[in-house]
Amino acid sequence: MVIFSTPRSRAECETLDASDPLRAVRDRFALPDGVIYLDGHSLGPATHAALARVEQAARREWAEGLIRSWNTAGWIDLPRGVGAKIARLIGVDSGDVLVTDSVSVNLFKLAAACLPVARSRTLIVEASEFPTDQYIAEGLAGIAGAGLMRVGENEGLDALTRTGGVLIRSVVNYRAAHVLDVAASERAAWAAGGLIVWDLSHATGVLDLKLAADGARIATGCTYKFLNGGPGAPAFVYVRGDLAEQLVSPISGWFGHADPFAFEPGYVARQGVARFAAGTPGVLSLAALDAALDAFDGHALSTLQDKARALGELIIARADALGLDVMSPREAALRGGHVSLRHAQGYAIVQALIAHGIIPDFRAPDAMRFGVAPLYVRFADVWDAMDQLADILGTRAWDRPEFHARAKVT
Amino acid sequence: MVIFSTPRSRAECETLDASDPLRAVRDRFALPDGVIYLDGHSLGPATHAALARVEQAARREWAEGLIRSWNTAGWIDLPRGVGAKIARLIGVDSGDVLVTDSVSVNLFKLAAACLPVARSRTLIVEASEFPTDQYIAEGLAGIAGAGLMRVGENEGLDALTRTGGVLIRSVVNYRAAHVLDVAASERAAWAAGGLIVWDLSHATGVLDLKLAADGARIATGCTYKFLNGGPGAPAFVYVRGDLAEQLVSPISGWFGHADPFAFEPGYVARQGVARFAAGTPGVLSLAALDAALDAFDGHALSTLQDKARALGELIIARADALGLDVMSPREAALRGGHVSLRHAQGYAIVQALIAHGIIPDFRAPDAMRFGVAPLYVRFADVWDAMDQLADILGTRAWDRPEFHARAKVT
Repeated sequence: MVIFSTPRSRAECETLDASDPLRAVRDRFALPDGVIYLDGHSLGPATHAALARVEQAARREWAEGLIRSWNTAGWIDLPRGVGAKIARLIGVDSGDVLVTDSVSVNLFKLAAACLPVARSRTLIVEASEFPTDQYIAEGLAGIAGAGLMRVGENEGLDALTRTGGVLIRSVVNYRAAHVLDVAASERAAWAAGGLIVWDLSHATGVLDLKLAADGARIATGCTYKFLNGGPGAPAFVYVRGDLAEQLVSPISGWFGHADPFAFEPGYVARQGVARFAAGTPGVLSLAALDAALDAFDGHALSTLQDKARALGELIIARADALGLDVMSPREAALRGGHVSLRHAQGYAIVQALIAHGIIPDFRAPDAMRFGVAPLYVRFADVWDAMDQLADILGTRAWDRPEFHARAKVT
Repeated sequence: MVIFSTPRSRAECETLDASDPLRAVRDRFALPDGVIYLDGHSLGPATHAALARVEQAARREWAEGLIRSWNTAGWIDLPRGVGAKIARLIGVDSGDVLVTDSVSVNLFKLAAACLPVARSRTLIVEASEFPTDQYIAEGLAGIAGAGLMRVGENEGLDALTRTGGVLIRSVVNYRAAHVLDVAASERAAWAAGGLIVWDLSHATGVLDLKLAADGARIATGCTYKFLNGGPGAPAFVYVRGDLAEQLVSPISGWFGHADPFAFEPGYVARQGVARFAAGTPGVLSLAALDAALDAFDGHALSTLQDKARALGELIIARADALGLDVMSPREAALRGGHVSLRHAQGYAIVQALIAHGIIPDFRAPDAMRFGVAPLYVRFADVWDAMDQLADILGTRAWDRPEFHARAKVT
């Protein structure tokens, strides 16, 4: 077992980095010089392998192979093949994961498919949930004629227990990285005849997820965050094998058909999770993701989690010393892969950090999020970032007009 | 006006190619040596610009720019910016097109949004329609509690007139390339209080489409066929500006929200067609498509259409001489960008052609489809391909076991 302690000096950080079992993984990443990247919870960086794979998919498979590559380059098998790699990272059977569409579209499909199976046709979502999860629940309730319960933070499970409905819930909250207990939640859902559609977007690649052991039945998640699949890479869907045949995707596109190239008039869903495919998969993005996932090879999820927790402890210790308001849980087991610090000038402070080559991000109204992706973030990186943060706060370097100009995307 | 005649010899083909106003466009494509590509109606080939743009998006914008590229590389504006390029190719206002999701997902969103607006909550689809269009109608009818009418080929408009429902209809049929009259159909739909969701997948980039002038209100289409966007490139959505505010997408993801980065709890749809966005857009695929579309710059749609028609005439003339059964309309104005020839051994014949570097495709049970993408297919290419077809038929070269082994993807 690997023990990561919380370093108290830059020298201790360097010592930890030198003995880090993941230290060689960083070399797989094409990180730009002069940048400390603490935004892997929003967009993971590129690996050299992913960049090479995109070029191979474009130049060799598309330009040279043309239509033949659906067979000869195995494009048709990518959604399942890449899914199998993700399956290990969430602790489920390799055949139970498919890569397809976006998290938003997948939440719609999965929650819709749950409605006829749950005891009650009620969709439940918490007000603290990532916005798209809330919006999708709202839109789905409208078209499906289902009930919609918007409840407060951490009230979703109670609502599920009372109604036996369908709860859309993140394992790791996007704002402050609180972690929900999957096993306890699934036990409660099961007893109530309800279902949980887990959103693993901020959890996959940084937590020691054991979805199957924890009884999780249905999930989707993002691949462009800690999985480093590239900007807008397609999302994944997990459905426990024995449950799949009971679920019907409302978006019954041809790639979810049992025999898509037979061109039959009536829809017959494929076996297993593959029935949640819809349109033609995006090959270039899938190829990048396929290669990116190899960075996880040979490393236990527990090692990733331990390192992320230790990096988080370091951020919290330094934030405490600066008198900053820590929004994220102090108990490591309750915290995901980022630490959020609250500051009224958070937006401008983040811009000032970016101007110094340190890249965290900001979530309205006041959360500065520092991501601690264990594959490439070093203890010394975090130490230096927090030094810079201390300097910016001490000198009020954020107090310049250019750091207050809001960009389209934050 | 450009006149393309039907050549009667290879020499005449070469003469036509030499005076082809599109002849220089072919050089923009990275076509492999020794291949005659007649499958642009299934997967368009790569342009040099698209390949370079993918690499720029991956190496510079993703790997170097990281999360900053949402703003600095304009990723956030790609769905609208690429949509504006497609708008010219379908004859609508530049602000009325968005690139997002797949055709399957977009058909679902658009047809669902039409149901409350049409006079009758009835979905109509023809049995000859591309399978995903039929499957999506089936799935949507189920979740929305709408009626579903499956009708025979060319009976959709009559059903629409009778019911005032929502017809999903391709402008160009995938199997034999029959073209429907958009203007006459829209007049009938309007009079009946119904709506048509046009599927432009096999029409865009090869027909002189004038959707706005023809009164078309709602459409989606594929970008990896004649638009050459790359394998699985995202699809587009067109909604006429004045109608957009009446339509609500059931898949109300955060990118369709009026202010996605405000992280508000309630859904407020964006203005215009952008409300049909859902999840995070796939940047690598969008970038390839963005560059690919520049191959159309400076060329009138009528020129593309005239050349495609003339290439089609040549295929039909040669097929007639071979005694082959021509499935596609003989009248050029009624035919899209491919010609389908029926043969009981069609699958094996297509495999034999591919073995000779000539790439058409096959659609079960018996259709050989020869695509005539005007940007890169030459008259001499078609002549040579038909020579090879004649040879394969004359020598029964298709009659080998390896040409009968069915691939996963046809």
